[in-house]
Amino acid sequence: MILQSIHSPGDLKKLDDASLTLLASQMRECIISTVSENGGHLASNLGVVELSIALHRVFDSPKDAIVWDVSHQCYPHKILTGRYGEFSTIRKEGGISGFTRIKESPHDYFDAGHASSSISSALGLLASWKLQGRDDKVVAVIGDGALTGGMAFEALSHAGQLSQNLIVVVNDNQMSISPNTGSLSRYLSRLTTGAAYQKFRRRIDHAIDRIPYFNRHIGKFIYRIKRALKGFFLTNNLFVDLGFEYAGPLDGHNIRELEKTFRRVKKIPRPVVVHVVTKKGKGYSPAENNPSAFHGIGPFNISDGSVEKFNALSFTECFSNYIVRLGEKDSRICAITAAMSKGTGLDAFSRKFKDRFFDVGIAEEHAVTFAGGLAAGNLIPFVAIYSTFMQRSVDQIIEDIALQNRHVIMVMDRAGAVPGDGETHQGIFDISLLRCIPDITFMTVVSSADMKLCLDYAVFSCSGPVCLRWSKNSCPSETPAFSVPVVSGRGILVEASEISPSLEVSVKDSRKKPKKVLLVCTGSMYGETLVAARNLLMNGIYCSIYVLRFLKPFDGEYFASAASDYDCAVIIEDGVRIGSFAEYLDMYIHKDPVLKKIKTSVLAFPDEFLANGEREYILKQAGLSPECITEAVFKLVR
Amino acid sequence: MILQSIHSPGDLKKLDDASLTLLASQMRECIISTVSENGGHLASNLGVVELSIALHRVFDSPKDAIVWDVSHQCYPHKILTGRYGEFSTIRKEGGISGFTRIKESPHDYFDAGHASSSISSALGLLASWKLQGRDDKVVAVIGDGALTGGMAFEALSHAGQLSQNLIVVVNDNQMSISPNTGSLSRYLSRLTTGAAYQKFRRRIDHAIDRIPYFNRHIGKFIYRIKRALKGFFLTNNLFVDLGFEYAGPLDGHNIRELEKTFRRVKKIPRPVVVHVVTKKGKGYSPAENNPSAFHGIGPFNISDGSVEKFNALSFTECFSNYIVRLGEKDSRICAITAAMSKGTGLDAFSRKFKDRFFDVGIAEEHAVTFAGGLAAGNLIPFVAIYSTFMQRSVDQIIEDIALQNRHVIMVMDRAGAVPGDGETHQGIFDISLLRCIPDITFMTVVSSADMKLCLDYAVFSCSGPVCLRWSKNSCPSETPAFSVPVVSGRGILVEASEISPSLEVSVKDSRKKPKKVLLVCTGSMYGETLVAARNLLMNGIYCSIYVLRFLKPFDGEYFASAASDYDCAVIIEDGVRIGSFAEYLDMYIHKDPVLKKIKTSVLAFPDEFLANGEREYILKQAGLSPECITEAVFKLVR
Repeated sequence: MILQSIHSPGDLKKLDDASLTLLASQMRECIISTVSENGGHLASNLGVVELSIALHRVFDSPKDAIVWDVSHQCYPHKILTGRYGEFSTIRKEGGISGFTRIKESPHDYFDAGHASSSISSALGLLASWKLQGRDDKVVAVIGDGALTGGMAFEALSHAGQLSQNLIVVVNDNQMSISPNTGSLSRYLSRLTTGAAYQKFRRRIDHAIDRIPYFNRHIGKFIYRIKRALKGFFLTNNLFVDLGFEYAGPLDGHNIRELEKTFRRVKKIPRPVVVHVVTKKGKGYSPAENNPSAFHGIGPFNISDGSVEKFNALSFTECFSNYIVRLGEKDSRICAITAAMSKGTGLDAFSRKFKDRFFDVGIAEEHAVTFAGGLAAGNLIPFVAIYSTFMQRSVDQIIEDIALQNRHVIMVMDRAGAVPGDGETHQGIFDISLLRCIPDITFMTVVSSADMKLCLDYAVFSCSGPVCLRWSKNSCPSETPAFSVPVVSGRGILVEASEISPSLEVSVKDSRKKPKKVLLVCTGSMYGETLVAARNLLMNGIYCSIYVLRFLKPFDGEYFASAASDYDCAVIIEDGVRIGSFAEYLDMYIHKDPVLKKIKTSVLAFPDEFLANGEREYILKQAGLSPECITEAVFKLVR
Repeated sequence: MILQSIHSPGDLKKLDDASLTLLASQMRECIISTVSENGGHLASNLGVVELSIALHRVFDSPKDAIVWDVSHQCYPHKILTGRYGEFSTIRKEGGISGFTRIKESPHDYFDAGHASSSISSALGLLASWKLQGRDDKVVAVIGDGALTGGMAFEALSHAGQLSQNLIVVVNDNQMSISPNTGSLSRYLSRLTTGAAYQKFRRRIDHAIDRIPYFNRHIGKFIYRIKRALKGFFLTNNLFVDLGFEYAGPLDGHNIRELEKTFRRVKKIPRPVVVHVVTKKGKGYSPAENNPSAFHGIGPFNISDGSVEKFNALSFTECFSNYIVRLGEKDSRICAITAAMSKGTGLDAFSRKFKDRFFDVGIAEEHAVTFAGGLAAGNLIPFVAIYSTFMQRSVDQIIEDIALQNRHVIMVMDRAGAVPGDGETHQGIFDISLLRCIPDITFMTVVSSADMKLCLDYAVFSCSGPVCLRWSKNSCPSETPAFSVPVVSGRGILVEASEISPSLEVSVKDSRKKPKKVLLVCTGSMYGETLVAARNLLMNGIYCSIYVLRFLKPFDGEYFASAASDYDCAVIIEDGVRIGSFAEYLDMYIHKDPVLKKIKTSVLAFPDEFLANGEREYILKQAGLSPECITEAVFKLVR
């Protein structure tokens, strides 16, 4: 197999055309079979096999730097840069990451995971090399989806100004993650002319610029003629307007054509955009036909692309169903996604209520402020963004939502531990970042029934901003307590008798007066807490669970009335400990005259970035697994 | 005076040309004289007098909405919408705000203060009206500076896609706050053709679009011809590329021309950009000649624009001087501003080290990630952004700086209470937002001598991300303790003997064993804490001050050794209480076996947005004034 003979990009350079074609097909097979087992990003990676080969043949990585935006398309790059041997471990505990990681290889210049940052990173790197007299090349590869992120535009504008030879490859698959409907995407698809005119047109450009203006009126006319001349030679597209050279569009699956252009643009001493058109999912028909479904995917059946369906309803599905119900009930409900209609569960709503659904592209800042505008017009917008990506909107939530007391409902899926995607995607900061903002109601959701009650509460009982968070997990089995009406600031007490009726009796029967333990947890930590609680009950320790429906506001009196009977409390929160609600509650207990007799322990994410792995692995490493909870109780009880 | 007869925009509509000219000049006089007394934004407001008049004559506010970006140019709007009578109270305690405020007037649709959000807000409002069948107009007014913010681009792209009749007025003063050197700005200055072609060119456009393509090669040729034809009629500028109609550039001081165009674009059922060229500081020569200095300014002398110079060195000046020294000492030092070189104190550095200075425009996200790129290339970048604007970069600090452990130094001026600008500009969230991020070193600076030590430490002793914060205040007088060497995690103990040698003796002499009080404060709260400490010492209460040089990491043992002698501690932090270091420290004291005997009290900003006023007023309202500190001590001591 050729693939096995590629230990570094240098090995690529000796191959002839036929071998390259074979290599590409072997790389595709390798990616498809590995992702079918490990899960991961499939369609995006299949789309850039030839592009990755061409880049690594023309540029001299790691002397030259190739910077992958988001880096969910870095699998071919990893295979070509000495990581084929470890490729089967991708996204697994202790395995290589599904994204570029500095620590993994000198070919990975940046840790990436959030969209639209590659041009900024690449430009900074290039500027530093220039200042130090180093003349190597820096290439940023960015999808048309990530290009809708404002930060990419900020960077393009700055790059045009600096005028150094940054090479930006726009990987135009007309898709991003969901079909890309923004005007930028329409614009890209209109740029359909060849690259052969580059040198010629530059001369023309200079010649045109030398035509003088005379006076204001003639000047205007001459300006228009110049513009017309330039238009003919395509000097004025959006990128050129910002100070870039432009080459493209190229067939992103034609290695020869790509290489030819890269060799040419390498020599241009100014910033260049190379516009490459690729097909998402290329070479695997289920993915070609449904690239959204194969963007990020769990293990699947190679023969037909089918995915094993779990019976348990996920929080995402539950939200997906219920927001449609809300939309039917109230015509003020609208929904906004930042290019993640499927992932956030808004797809059903988007089909049913086209007018009230807005996909703004990968543009979390605009998404939130746009929602503020909708709310100013008396609608009730939902902004559905993953916890990790909501980090992008902190300022907008402060200034455009909370300060103006807008009734915007921000739902954060993928809160807490996020499996597979690694440290860039953990939903562990949202509580600390958003709970400190005045006038925000912040809820954590524990089950399907609870979610409906919480969403009803957010829509019909609140008039200001509301944040809700849930995990990627399946909803746990319902228990009557989850259906108690929502009252501001109050959590849900699940008594020992509800957790395990038979076991509770056995505890009651034991002669020694049992220590009573209250496990206090966020909704998304209920599953682990329940396992721990059952284990404790089996070991003769009486315990109940208090689910924190509200992280803000907090009804201290209600909590005190529920907690005052207990001797010990373990507070479990799947967010970073600094700035956590858990620490606040711990303090509250210590300062309360009645509660202060309770011995407490706080379990939250430590002050470090988390290693990659399955949810269970992450929670165990961080001290939040059921065993860790049990152990914390034992420590208190002893 | 005509000005006095304008009680609402309706009154404007009756005026003839001569009266309008007179009105404009009276408005200018009113603005100049008021700002010369109250301080505020001058140049930006003088630039939009005619634009504001024209908008309010053509549109029917508040039925139509005029949305001002940042709104530091809303003074003429306020004068024209019934607030002339209160105008002399602008920016004062209890007076009207220097920005648009929903609570102040139905003509103010949004609270604004951070740049680049107006198009998002306006588009949301318009979309909500459309959904509800309301056909009124929404106009966003945005400066060329704010247009460099990525969020504005996200919103333009989305507006082009929605294709509703949003009107975006680009107020092009070729300046933003500092001279605007980005490629977008160069681009705007090239757009120099009239608006008369709008209708004609639309027809041409359609005609051109109807030319068919045939096959791939001929298609390319015809595409170029189409492009050339369109270029002649200027259909393809950046805004048109994004789906907008374009009208301009117009003379922004010609009311007639502006009105004519506004009346025309009002009827266009698609999004329109109206490109208006104005002169910052128009009508007041000191401001015309030096618009940066008159962007935001304190009270000044009208006759010559001179500003009274205070002798005390501000933190900003101190930083300005010292970063030049650092730049001389180490060629790896570079500096980045987001269009605020003067406000952040980088102007001297920018003149001395042109190559190592980067003004990225109002683009805080890119600024931070670009710095990460520079650090990846082994330079040591400073990113200088006001505390309130750093809120924009939280995600980038997490993902592109901390996660990758980049040695980037983020300095936040205007931390804590910010006078005059109101709730949108308070620097009260930075600690809660950034302290929760792993691997960040977070320092607060207390004096000029301390700043030098802290900056040296950040540059030469750290290898990961460092945040430093200071206030807008003057540096306090030095005291020997401020010059103790920086040791990670350790604060500065200013003993009673250093605070007030004579008084301390009197306390020592008193017969009753005095309660010993430790006042723990952030650097920026030292001034108020010192006043309180002196007052306490005069009242016979022995007290010292512990200045928190480090909010992270925290050397608990060192703190314990300094604090264990004391009976009481008041912890004073000029950030929001939720997620504060103060609450953490409080908890730390309570849980420490030795320290727990200390009675504590935490003073931090309450969980609400702050009313506008002078620093003293804000701190008093929030319970952080010297009197509040003294009172908190009395409560503990009694």
